[in-house]
Amino acid sequence: MKKIRLGIVGCGIAARDLHYPALKELTDKFEITAVTSRTKKHAEEFARLVGNPVIFNSYDELLESDIVDAVDLTIPIELNLPFIEKAVKKGKHVICEKPISTDVNTGKKVVEISKQTDRVIYIAENWRHIKKFYLIRDLLNKIKNPLFFKWNLWIGMDEENKYAKTKWRQQPKHIGGFLSDGGVHHVAAMRLIFGEIKWVSANTKKVVDYLGGPDFLTSIFEFENGVIGNYTVSYGISGQEDFEIVGIDNRLKLTENKIIVDDKEFSFEENLGYKEEFEDFYEVVINKKKNDLGSPLEALKDLAFFEAAVKSCGNKIELKTLL
Amino acid sequence: MKKIRLGIVGCGIAARDLHYPALKELTDKFEITAVTSRTKKHAEEFARLVGNPVIFNSYDELLESDIVDAVDLTIPIELNLPFIEKAVKKGKHVICEKPISTDVNTGKKVVEISKQTDRVIYIAENWRHIKKFYLIRDLLNKIKNPLFFKWNLWIGMDEENKYAKTKWRQQPKHIGGFLSDGGVHHVAAMRLIFGEIKWVSANTKKVVDYLGGPDFLTSIFEFENGVIGNYTVSYGISGQEDFEIVGIDNRLKLTENKIIVDDKEFSFEENLGYKEEFEDFYEVVINKKKNDLGSPLEALKDLAFFEAAVKSCGNKIELKTLL
Repeated sequence: MKKIRLGIVGCGIAARDLHYPALKELTDKFEITAVTSRTKKHAEEFARLVGNPVIFNSYDELLESDIVDAVDLTIPIELNLPFIEKAVKKGKHVICEKPISTDVNTGKKVVEISKQTDRVIYIAENWRHIKKFYLIRDLLNKIKNPLFFKWNLWIGMDEENKYAKTKWRQQPKHIGGFLSDGGVHHVAAMRLIFGEIKWVSANTKKVVDYLGGPDFLTSIFEFENGVIGNYTVSYGISGQEDFEIVGIDNRLKLTENKIIVDDKEFSFEENLGYKEEFEDFYEVVINKKKNDLGSPLEALKDLAFFEAAVKSCGNKIELKTLL
Repeated sequence: MKKIRLGIVGCGIAARDLHYPALKELTDKFEITAVTSRTKKHAEEFARLVGNPVIFNSYDELLESDIVDAVDLTIPIELNLPFIEKAVKKGKHVICEKPISTDVNTGKKVVEISKQTDRVIYIAENWRHIKKFYLIRDLLNKIKNPLFFKWNLWIGMDEENKYAKTKWRQQPKHIGGFLSDGGVHHVAAMRLIFGEIKWVSANTKKVVDYLGGPDFLTSIFEFENGVIGNYTVSYGISGQEDFEIVGIDNRLKLTENKIIVDDKEFSFEENLGYKEEFEDFYEVVINKKKNDLGSPLEALKDLAFFEAAVKSCGNKIELKTLL
């Protein structure tokens, strides 16, 4: 089987804790041949961890070399667009950690580039590979007239949280700070289950001082299929998650390890989605599978929800006006 | 002690099941001297129940008689304004079941009348007399930086519900149907706890066919004190109520019979508020107590939330633009 020779760009949390554990299980499909990082020490540590690929002093040098077929971009969000652009120019495929970009207009440029190249630009949204959400989508047919979807998340990052301490997250150049950085996962899951979101009205707020940007959001919105949504998330305050789909006669509830419809419980295989995401990327690059799950346009739609939410201040914003 | 001679106008559910049980305990303060109802049979049955006061064939005749000091109006909402107007013209005090009127503009006329008369116009909002809400207001000081207030109510009226079967509720002339009819109680409680509401963005929907008007509402809003609200209510779908105040470090939760702050439980004396409301009305009429709890302006503000919510369709509406 042909292996993709992968250059990992950015050797921070995402590379080390999210992507590498997946790649370690996919050595038949990927070979990490190169790494680079703004912080040399990070690159060296990461290189040791992953089997001593070539360490490049810069992204440009990595791209100039002929030892990578694709780059895995796990970099500050504001670098996504220029780094994707460069990779494609050098004929490399790209898998890039979500969110697609800092804001919708910049993200549109990524979508444009992806239309004009035969190289793959794959936005890594691992939640589009999480099995429980597909099971929920399948179980929706058990809900008579689904009316309302409520999702309350109390993520409760403390000051010592590794993401909270990332410098570029502390002074976010991406819209909404943690709201979009973490939130695109949630919207990816919602859209996977219910389809497109028509409009949103939201209120966002900065609540805790150690998280960059706003860290609280409450919103009402409507899916194109008529289901009414109510999504509330706090990154600073901890608490019990509440995920429920309400129909006229019955409800679906997601708990930590099961889905409950009426009195019936459905278990699911828990997965983080990173492995599946790299497998999918492989299929798209090697076997020309359609890039539906890593599609830049899908990632852009996830982000658009948060740009609308941040701009909303209680006003209704139709998502199509941003897209 | 001077007794208020009360004429009960409208002998339906509110008179029989809500007001009379309270008045029965206040025979030292009130004497039901007269009744009238559009439906003669209702008036006769009610008269028998309450000790055979004089039955009048019409409201006009009741007002013309000199056997009542005050009228208790428990009538279809659209009759509130004309009936209040007539009562005041005839020199009678008024206690009138909430909501104040069909819509804010009509309600404003009630407020105007109340400013121009020395007669008492008391809008009976029993939830402004429910003790647990005052305890919650007191306990708010235990919540560090209250940020968010969430209230989900799943009232679940079925087709046989006595309110659902009321003809004037089936073809409501009052804005929002059950949303305002039932909802003014909730907003009265919220305003009692947190103060004035600045703006609301809401989505309302008709879900079940046997309830007149829309029966589902979800909303985000902001109180003038900065607390962000999220109120969802369904009159057709049943389910567990969820009432929670979220602060940065801790939460207050209201359950069926207690208030929980952190791990501490606070019990409260359960009361429906009707008895206290009539006692308060008595104090206002007889001892010139300030009419703060039965104030038409307060009742108007409760109603304004729902007029805004119904008009919102996801748009932000500042309540002051209605008031």
